Amino acid sequence: MKVVVLMSGGLDSSVLAAYAKRELFCDVHGLGVNYGQRHAVELQHAAMVAAAMDIPFQVADLTSLRGLLGGSSQTDASIPVPEGHYADESMKATVVPNRNMIMLSVAAGHAIALGARAVLYAAHSGDHPIYPDCRPQFVLALAEAMALCHYEPIQLTAPFVNRSKANIARLGRDLSVPMDLTWSCYKGGEKHCGKCGTCVERREAFQLAGVPDPTVYEPA
Amino acid sequence: MKVVVLMSGGLDSSVLAAYAKRELFCDVHGLGVNYGQRHAVELQHAAMVAAAMDIPFQVADLTSLRGLLGGSSQTDASIPVPEGHYADESMKATVVPNRNMIMLSVAAGHAIALGARAVLYAAHSGDHPIYPDCRPQFVLALAEAMALCHYEPIQLTAPFVNRSKANIARLGRDLSVPMDLTWSCYKGGEKHCGKCGTCVERREAFQLAGVPDPTVYEPA
Repeated sequence: MKVVVLMSGGLDSSVLAAYAKRELFCDVHGLGVNYGQRHAVELQHAAMVAAAMDIPFQVADLTSLRGLLGGSSQTDASIPVPEGHYADESMKATVVPNRNMIMLSVAAGHAIALGARAVLYAAHSGDHPIYPDCRPQFVLALAEAMALCHYEPIQLTAPFVNRSKANIARLGRDLSVPMDLTWSCYKGGEKHCGKCGTCVERREAFQLAGVPDPTVYEPA
Repeated sequence: MKVVVLMSGGLDSSVLAAYAKRELFCDVHGLGVNYGQRHAVELQHAAMVAAAMDIPFQVADLTSLRGLLGGSSQTDASIPVPEGHYADESMKATVVPNRNMIMLSVAAGHAIALGARAVLYAAHSGDHPIYPDCRPQFVLALAEAMALCHYEPIQLTAPFVNRSKANIARLGRDLSVPMDLTWSCYKGGEKHCGKCGTCVERREAFQLAGVPDPTVYEPA
């Protein structure tokens, strides 16, 4: 089955692409989205991960939406990236309004154009506290709409929606995902900063999973 | 209540914007979407209609998605615009994959950024035969997702989903909508072609409604 996997260059979506290809035997087409994120470097990492796994990869350019979607630390350089734990209230500053529905809608349109039957994205259980558009009830509701958006239904699934990131790191190890090529840091510097929410979450996930962390972090 | 109305420059969405402002007393913010449509001239008409009704209006530029969404007569100059009735099977050539979900997702993100509570769009009963993403069941399903996409629900409504276009033309007359400023033609020439699906539908609507048609069509 041909599917579109949203690939951000991060750990979760890289493992998801591998899972879809190697466990579900899907014909995976990767799609990255440039929504003007400060850490757009992640898309270069997505391309590297896709190339390493022999997955075709394209980028949707939505940078022009930045002005319409307003202030998030992800897209507005004047808003600082919060440091701390990924589940902290302060991480709400990183929310880009309706980002996931926009990205998933584009992915579904791309799936229709490719003749693919499904869209997969890597929301996981650690995303739920802060990001409404990563919660199971959102995925289910949008899946209903996606089943009706065209002549043939497009299936939407988030296979990791009830998995922890540590669990995903273990799966990544088991599937030989090139996790050293992935990028999580919201700051988008030369190395992972080690202090922003996603860096803290990434480091914690490898530790909890008992999987060696291949990441080079900035010295504390 | 502050709302975002998707305004294409056509008859239906222009009447909807007037309806939201003048009957529902909403604080209307118009949003047009440039998805690379052949008839992007419609967005200039949307801006004129909005200005005439004192509605702020912005355009989301999604032209860069053209390559990802594939062939439609709307976005690919090599595919001819079909002539005939709007409800004909041939009109499927005009379908842009998942266009409405993409536009509505962007509108919802914009609504969140503006502090608006709802997104309105002008799907009507004549759209249902060809366009799955104009049908009531699609609207209801996407509304469920939009209610869950952020911390506060964003309401999605399509007030005309069970109205005919003739009914909308009458409402437009009653609300003094500047219908002469609206644009429907898919060919996007200097005048309305009078032969494409939307032109045929537009002319028929005014006739059925018994409302004078202000449109200047190309000679037959």
